[in-house]
Amino acid sequence: MARLKGFQKLTLIDDALQTWLNVLQVKKPREVTMPLNEALNRVLASDVIAEEDLPRFYRSAVDGYALKAEDTTGASQFNPATFQIIESEEVDSKHAKQIWTGNPLPKGADAVVMIENTKKTEDALEVWIQLARGGNVSKKGEDVKKGENILKAGTRLKPYHLALLAAMGNNEVKVVEKPRIAILATGNELVEVGCQPSENQIFDSNRVMLSTMCQEIGAEPVDLGIAKDDVAEIAEKLKIGMRKCDGVITSGGTSVGRLDLVPDAVNQVGNPGVVVHGLALRPAMPTALAALDGKPVMILSGNPVAAIIGFEVFARPLICKMLGMAREEPRPTVIAVMTRKVATTLGRKTFVRVRVTQKNSALLAEPVSARGSGAISTMTRGNGFVIIPENREGVTEGELVTVRLFGNVEAVN
Amino acid sequence: MARLKGFQKLTLIDDALQTWLNVLQVKKPREVTMPLNEALNRVLASDVIAEEDLPRFYRSAVDGYALKAEDTTGASQFNPATFQIIESEEVDSKHAKQIWTGNPLPKGADAVVMIENTKKTEDALEVWIQLARGGNVSKKGEDVKKGENILKAGTRLKPYHLALLAAMGNNEVKVVEKPRIAILATGNELVEVGCQPSENQIFDSNRVMLSTMCQEIGAEPVDLGIAKDDVAEIAEKLKIGMRKCDGVITSGGTSVGRLDLVPDAVNQVGNPGVVVHGLALRPAMPTALAALDGKPVMILSGNPVAAIIGFEVFARPLICKMLGMAREEPRPTVIAVMTRKVATTLGRKTFVRVRVTQKNSALLAEPVSARGSGAISTMTRGNGFVIIPENREGVTEGELVTVRLFGNVEAVN
Repeated sequence: MARLKGFQKLTLIDDALQTWLNVLQVKKPREVTMPLNEALNRVLASDVIAEEDLPRFYRSAVDGYALKAEDTTGASQFNPATFQIIESEEVDSKHAKQIWTGNPLPKGADAVVMIENTKKTEDALEVWIQLARGGNVSKKGEDVKKGENILKAGTRLKPYHLALLAAMGNNEVKVVEKPRIAILATGNELVEVGCQPSENQIFDSNRVMLSTMCQEIGAEPVDLGIAKDDVAEIAEKLKIGMRKCDGVITSGGTSVGRLDLVPDAVNQVGNPGVVVHGLALRPAMPTALAALDGKPVMILSGNPVAAIIGFEVFARPLICKMLGMAREEPRPTVIAVMTRKVATTLGRKTFVRVRVTQKNSALLAEPVSARGSGAISTMTRGNGFVIIPENREGVTEGELVTVRLFGNVEAVN
Repeated sequence: MARLKGFQKLTLIDDALQTWLNVLQVKKPREVTMPLNEALNRVLASDVIAEEDLPRFYRSAVDGYALKAEDTTGASQFNPATFQIIESEEVDSKHAKQIWTGNPLPKGADAVVMIENTKKTEDALEVWIQLARGGNVSKKGEDVKKGENILKAGTRLKPYHLALLAAMGNNEVKVVEKPRIAILATGNELVEVGCQPSENQIFDSNRVMLSTMCQEIGAEPVDLGIAKDDVAEIAEKLKIGMRKCDGVITSGGTSVGRLDLVPDAVNQVGNPGVVVHGLALRPAMPTALAALDGKPVMILSGNPVAAIIGFEVFARPLICKMLGMAREEPRPTVIAVMTRKVATTLGRKTFVRVRVTQKNSALLAEPVSARGSGAISTMTRGNGFVIIPENREGVTEGELVTVRLFGNVEAVN
């Protein structure tokens, strides 16, 4: 067999994730309290229980007049009921008090007639419809009841969540502290962006990419720089990462043929070290998963697209777990029609990059891997992944596929 | 007719937007240069043209051996071609040089054989397959060609865009400065969160909501606090907003019946003032649109859900325009089955809040407006809008609808 340095066996993704999670000790996340207007997209640390009703009092749902519903019995446009407009606090029989949306219902009143259904005469108010008790009134506790669990721990806070917290009287919220993830790029061929590369060097683009992917999901990246292809140097940087952070992501130094520099370095640093290496995943086969003292080490390919897929498949669900979410935050998906056939290898889960566009009412998914398969431009030209499972040999032209979107869908003509 | 203080005429949404945009002077956005790792989700200020090819040189796409393709003619597992493994810089006929993914192709070589298709013997390399010229080689410019427009102005920068910029050697990027939007809440009934409300007061939740909605789309909110229901006080705050910011959003003081406090204040401050008031939109009918010296003033309802819809329909597309985007950034949409009938009023565009869930392979849209229609909990319990056009009287149970998602879709059993 010629696969001299190939992986003996490729691990299926679900098995790999399980094996890895079994050796990790994901701790309950630390909490931090912050003002609501700084908490957008942060993750709620614990359940929020309503301490009182919302609304806190019966209030008008419309602009109009508060009155007793029973006094409108039989009222119609042809037979209006007549009320005396009052200014006092309490509404007695045949009295009506002007009220605006959101105002508390005055004592004695049990309904509000909309201004549109009335006519003000010189000294009275004519009401043209019959109202039931509670008509046009927002009931105490109608929105939220005291004791209700209004937001669950692990919720990614959006503006309307923050508004609900404010409406309940909170000016602060307890959120999860961002897990700190160290980012290390490895490779003799890499040069820092902004520097002048020699003829055979390439700019390191994976660190900025992985750092901002961490930011996007809610982790705090910590830059470990670039390490040469040298086990001792990589191990030294890994130790710094483990000391400062809750996990480490590396890129490069983990291909099939090359010495397994990063896995070797990880195994030198501690236990259990690498637990999965070589995945039934395309691209991203050389991904390795490790743990050091229960903290995760994600060893991604140096190929930028393979690094993205490795992050998508392993780092994303893990960071969601570190954030205290019950499950991975789903990306939006759409069903689209493949515009071309794509062949894949049986036994490998394959991430095909596609560009989804809307043409009239149809969504079309066009594969974008025509030029260089590992090219980062397949990501910038695409907006979604079609994930082809291990038991398929590809998708056919015209097939309906589920696309996991990472970018916007635009309409074309 | 009883509609004493009602709107004489409700303006259709598209007309309203057009009327408003006609009186606005949206300037070309200011630019600011920043490091790549701070630019996530910022908007690119100008087109990026590739200054060189990517890859900058011919490089190996695999781990293996660089050689001349012609020397593999006729090679197979039963008839391997034999090569001498060399260390020198140049590859001559019948020579093979070990090479890793990403390494530049050595001079003289025109293909790379994968390590899996070879066998190393004591003094030679056996190659078991026939290669074409260019086989397993990433061509210079294969990913990006020099002179190519790789990213368009107005692009929201995601990790893979930043990676592409880094791969081209950039350590900084020119992005659009965030438009500054002043946020003002109005209403005697409002009290600041964190304070003790009197019995009839409610906590102001709209400011934190509108501020974080601005943050979410990429604008910088500037807090103008709470104004009482007083035209002079509102006008004073508006002036501060106009001086400091590129636009103002207000909430409250614009209902049908109540004095039009905010519109009146806007009209006092300058020209042209309010150009649209009263919209064929539900909720959010009392929304008004204004301009002062070409800057936008968005007068939203005090009802939180109506304020969200007003923001969605008017502020969102406007801020996208202020950010230099060619069109509004689309929200993800899905097609789902309505689980219940919803009746709407002919002639009003209606935003129905729904909760979309995935049950097996079906997406179901359940309306969530059962309790209090203006309740913010209809947003926190929902994850999308079904927009029912003016010419429809609702949707039926079982109907397929397009849902504009603002939250995640979860799977249920």
